[in-house]
Amino acid sequence: METLIIGPMDPWGPFATGFIGLIFAFILYGLIMKFPAGKQSVVKIGDQIHLGAKVFMITEYKILAPVVLALVLACGLSPLGWYTALAIAVGALSSAIAGFIGMYSATKANVRTATAAENHGQEQALSISFFGGSIMGLCVASMGLVGLGGLFFYFSGAMDDLDKIAKALEGFGVGASAVALFSRVGGGIYTKSADVGADLVGKIEAGIPEDDPRNPGVIADNVGDNVGDIAGMGSDIFESYCGAMIASIAIAATMLDPNLMFLPLWLAASGLFCSLIGIGIVRTQVSRSPAVALRWGTFLSPVIFLIFAGVSIYYSPIEMKYFYSVLTGAVGGILIGLITEYYTGGDTENSPVGKIAKSGETGPATVMITGLSVGMQSVVLPLFVIAGIVGLSTYFSGLYGVGIAAVGMLSTVGITMAIDAYGPVADNAGGIAEMSGMKSEVREITDSLDELGNTTAAIGKGFAIGAAALAALAIIAAYMLAADVEQLSLDDPKVLMGMFIGGSIPFLVSSITMTAVGDAAFEMIEEIRRQFREIPGLLEGKAEPDNAKCVDIATKAALNKMLLPGAIAILSPVIVGFVLGPIHLGGMLAGALLGCVLMALMMANAGGAWDNAKKFVEKGNFGGKGTDTHSATVVGDTVGDPFKDTSGPSMNILINVMAIVSLVIAPLL
Amino acid sequence: METLIIGPMDPWGPFATGFIGLIFAFILYGLIMKFPAGKQSVVKIGDQIHLGAKVFMITEYKILAPVVLALVLACGLSPLGWYTALAIAVGALSSAIAGFIGMYSATKANVRTATAAENHGQEQALSISFFGGSIMGLCVASMGLVGLGGLFFYFSGAMDDLDKIAKALEGFGVGASAVALFSRVGGGIYTKSADVGADLVGKIEAGIPEDDPRNPGVIADNVGDNVGDIAGMGSDIFESYCGAMIASIAIAATMLDPNLMFLPLWLAASGLFCSLIGIGIVRTQVSRSPAVALRWGTFLSPVIFLIFAGVSIYYSPIEMKYFYSVLTGAVGGILIGLITEYYTGGDTENSPVGKIAKSGETGPATVMITGLSVGMQSVVLPLFVIAGIVGLSTYFSGLYGVGIAAVGMLSTVGITMAIDAYGPVADNAGGIAEMSGMKSEVREITDSLDELGNTTAAIGKGFAIGAAALAALAIIAAYMLAADVEQLSLDDPKVLMGMFIGGSIPFLVSSITMTAVGDAAFEMIEEIRRQFREIPGLLEGKAEPDNAKCVDIATKAALNKMLLPGAIAILSPVIVGFVLGPIHLGGMLAGALLGCVLMALMMANAGGAWDNAKKFVEKGNFGGKGTDTHSATVVGDTVGDPFKDTSGPSMNILINVMAIVSLVIAPLL
Repeated sequence: METLIIGPMDPWGPFATGFIGLIFAFILYGLIMKFPAGKQSVVKIGDQIHLGAKVFMITEYKILAPVVLALVLACGLSPLGWYTALAIAVGALSSAIAGFIGMYSATKANVRTATAAENHGQEQALSISFFGGSIMGLCVASMGLVGLGGLFFYFSGAMDDLDKIAKALEGFGVGASAVALFSRVGGGIYTKSADVGADLVGKIEAGIPEDDPRNPGVIADNVGDNVGDIAGMGSDIFESYCGAMIASIAIAATMLDPNLMFLPLWLAASGLFCSLIGIGIVRTQVSRSPAVALRWGTFLSPVIFLIFAGVSIYYSPIEMKYFYSVLTGAVGGILIGLITEYYTGGDTENSPVGKIAKSGETGPATVMITGLSVGMQSVVLPLFVIAGIVGLSTYFSGLYGVGIAAVGMLSTVGITMAIDAYGPVADNAGGIAEMSGMKSEVREITDSLDELGNTTAAIGKGFAIGAAALAALAIIAAYMLAADVEQLSLDDPKVLMGMFIGGSIPFLVSSITMTAVGDAAFEMIEEIRRQFREIPGLLEGKAEPDNAKCVDIATKAALNKMLLPGAIAILSPVIVGFVLGPIHLGGMLAGALLGCVLMALMMANAGGAWDNAKKFVEKGNFGGKGTDTHSATVVGDTVGDPFKDTSGPSMNILINVMAIVSLVIAPLL
Repeated sequence: METLIIGPMDPWGPFATGFIGLIFAFILYGLIMKFPAGKQSVVKIGDQIHLGAKVFMITEYKILAPVVLALVLACGLSPLGWYTALAIAVGALSSAIAGFIGMYSATKANVRTATAAENHGQEQALSISFFGGSIMGLCVASMGLVGLGGLFFYFSGAMDDLDKIAKALEGFGVGASAVALFSRVGGGIYTKSADVGADLVGKIEAGIPEDDPRNPGVIADNVGDNVGDIAGMGSDIFESYCGAMIASIAIAATMLDPNLMFLPLWLAASGLFCSLIGIGIVRTQVSRSPAVALRWGTFLSPVIFLIFAGVSIYYSPIEMKYFYSVLTGAVGGILIGLITEYYTGGDTENSPVGKIAKSGETGPATVMITGLSVGMQSVVLPLFVIAGIVGLSTYFSGLYGVGIAAVGMLSTVGITMAIDAYGPVADNAGGIAEMSGMKSEVREITDSLDELGNTTAAIGKGFAIGAAALAALAIIAAYMLAADVEQLSLDDPKVLMGMFIGGSIPFLVSSITMTAVGDAAFEMIEEIRRQFREIPGLLEGKAEPDNAKCVDIATKAALNKMLLPGAIAILSPVIVGFVLGPIHLGGMLAGALLGCVLMALMMANAGGAWDNAKKFVEKGNFGGKGTDTHSATVVGDTVGDPFKDTSGPSMNILINVMAIVSLVIAPLL
């Protein structure tokens, strides 16, 4: 392979950068561990959550291992070969490690956040929880570089043919997306079923407060935050992040340009450095104003990244037109984030959230109608932005532009993911404070941290959907090149058939995951009711609940329910590809992409808006807590939960899994 | 033009058949009018409904007239020319006449149904209401043949070039779809806002029963049934029916085959005869069992049609392969109908409807989640069937196959529409019975008739969506041929951009129409409250409500709110086509088609399932009326109302309007 001369880096550069990122993550972990975990009762609860999350993820990985092994063997024995098989294994392992470390550190950070809030106040609590989130962010970015960068380095030494290198790397995407799919869907089902179960029996039936230690479901609820909102989300973003790079590499390979193959890794490595800078900004500015610190971190990192990327591409042999595509992607990502914030984060009566809250005055039905309407409307502008990104990025640099735009959007994933993951850590700390009977001011601090995180996280969520859409689109583009179909024209009935079939898949998977939450919650409800009934003295606080049993039930239920959507995602492109053919499959991917993006945005934004409408009422608007208006918005929030935390997010992965599986099997069709 | 030698018919045949259909409609009208309207109080209420519906439609047409006139002038002065302009005018006029006659007769049939139910029982009541619905069905089928068939006859004499004839006929689709769009959306908003307004103030605030004559909103509510569920639905189906024919003609023109151009009209004419037979079957079998009669009518008409079509094509110079496409369409339509029935019409605890009802035990939130889940799931199989129809029909006879399959599905529209329209007539009769204080048995009879209609109508609704999708697809195929774009490949960024933009349009329109219902209902609520407050003695039954004022408010609100969605539907393809280009527009149509079909099915089926879940509980299941479970299902039903009667149905027309406008402007791009 030709020597790559982008800036000062060699092919081993991204791999090395990944290790540097991991070192920083471990330094942050050390910093967190220096803070005291707190008194005995706090430590005990923290340990239960930590253990529950660990058990869930290990059980999950045990179920996943044979699936991945089967994929590896099937791939190795097929004409795709053992290089691709190796990449599948590395991809799965990298994603699993990132998720596990993230969850592990988060469950260490949460107790320390609670204790810090109790003893030292908001600033220290924010630091610890933000460090906790940052570890997840850094692990995602770093493991991507270590895994994918390492394979790139290895393959570029072992193989001469650019096409073969790219083909082998695709396996990484399959591994990563398989893990992401199961983590996101399983974690999403876990977290919401535990949440719903604990709330329904505890708050409504037994009349005890949220996060009350007597409730056997609350530990499971808190475990859910860690496995769903942290590990699940991490593997989700990991998948888009690597998918975008893999797609760009695959397209660059068909252009026979090794520099363009290396560019995504180089950009991601630069982005990791910029994320480190961003984390530093947040850390140093936090004492002035936490809200401003988070916002600056979110916006400055991409800006620094763009300057850095622009300058280094300018002085490299790569044409500047590719930078313009990167720019398009990064700006587009921020735009989608801001639109998402508008629809889900408003706090005036005339904002979409305010309108939903107001509609609570006429009951739950109007809350539903208004919320669904907001969700549907919130789809429009992001899709226009995506269309704009597609148009501009390809105008600058062809189909490769779409891929590299997605890379541009995702390269500062370290900081975006850090802010996303910090909210659940703070939320968890609040739960621990409640359970261990800390005074109410502690809860107020953690609540304010959580809220702060939610607003910034809204931007990250929109970002994630936009990035996933673009990554999937790039993979689909790579598929079309790989499948060697002359054209996928819309007047070809095969394409249309595929489109209709593909469009139905996101609806099917959403339907399954929505009911899965209900079914899993039902088992949880039965168990909590049983414990209240059968354990003497539990409600009086004289006996201890059997938390482990609830964790176990939620684990089994979630993992059980994730199999069907997982099988649909992996098998549907295989079946359509082999039974109907590569042209049908191309149409199917297009239909599924559109359906997934539409549903992901609609569900995530409607869910977020309902959540905040409830909070808006709870702040005293339209009568405040305890009124019928409030109850009406609670209904909205309950419907919004599976929307925004289970079904909505699984759409991102669904399309990416379908796309990457198609890309890998393309030469066999 | 060459002589056409299909069977015994000439180009004037369909035109003449249309007249025969109209004569039968007038005979049915005569039969209805022979029945007594009833006592003074009944006649008075009936007259108010009749007048209100007439005023709405005339006002609507007055708003529409300048829009249509503008389209006619713009078209005539453009290179498209005056033949197309003439067709626009005829299309709009035909649709308007069909809708008006249908509404006019329905509002004559409803009083007579009520009186018959009071004096003679179920059988006579069923006959009258079914006749009322049949007039709408026959008018749709007949006016299509009179208008489109007449133009075909005229143009084939006036022009020599097949392409020019087809091009001119496309104008008919524009006119018909413009009227359909405004009727369906305006009617949908009218009917639901009046319904919600009357119910909310009357039932909940004032505590008086549904359809109580003291409630100033109930007349408007009943008017709504006629303008929304009868006239609106009629113009909707009219549009798909004619759209399918026009698309087939356009594709046949590019194949330079005059026989294939004539085939859709010939099939539609045959279908009209078969619908007449079907209406006869229902009429003669009704005394045995009404349910069986309606079912036989629905299924036998297409069977007879298929035999007829198969035999006549066999003996014509047209190849049999075209018949197989017709067969595919007709069978597919029935399949979609049956799937729709499964999802919305179940009456056991394990059916989807039963599950929604059961989820009411845990409150409105779970009703929403289960209902949305059912709605999403209900999308899957119909899309597979559509994919199958596309695959098979094109396998048999290329792109023309899609169009002629849609014609096959829709040719027995006379009977399908008759059954669809009969339900609202019966429902209206029930309202009249209630308002005029007839004894409760009368209401029971009309309720049983209504329910009977609902089950069979579910089949018709699925049918309508499938047919609309196929018709739109055929128009899009015609567009691709007309726009003369070499290929619309999915790896072309222009196509992808268009797809993303197009996919967002159905979400935007749904969002607007959902809130429009709420806003319009709000004005209604204010007015009803005002009357209760300011008219002395109204609640005691000593004074009369100002019904006309409510009708007026609903009319203005609905017509006001229909303008924005209407403008989006007509202008979005024009803007994308002229600003971005024909390739973007092609992608946009594909995206919008997929989005519209998905949303149409999801919303219609979720809405239908929620409605029936409420009714299922009202029959005494899960505690029956008055329980919390019942209240929870009422919330589902309220959300389902705009889903199934406003936003969902407007999706069908949206895509057809976008497609036909694109087809017409294609040569200008």
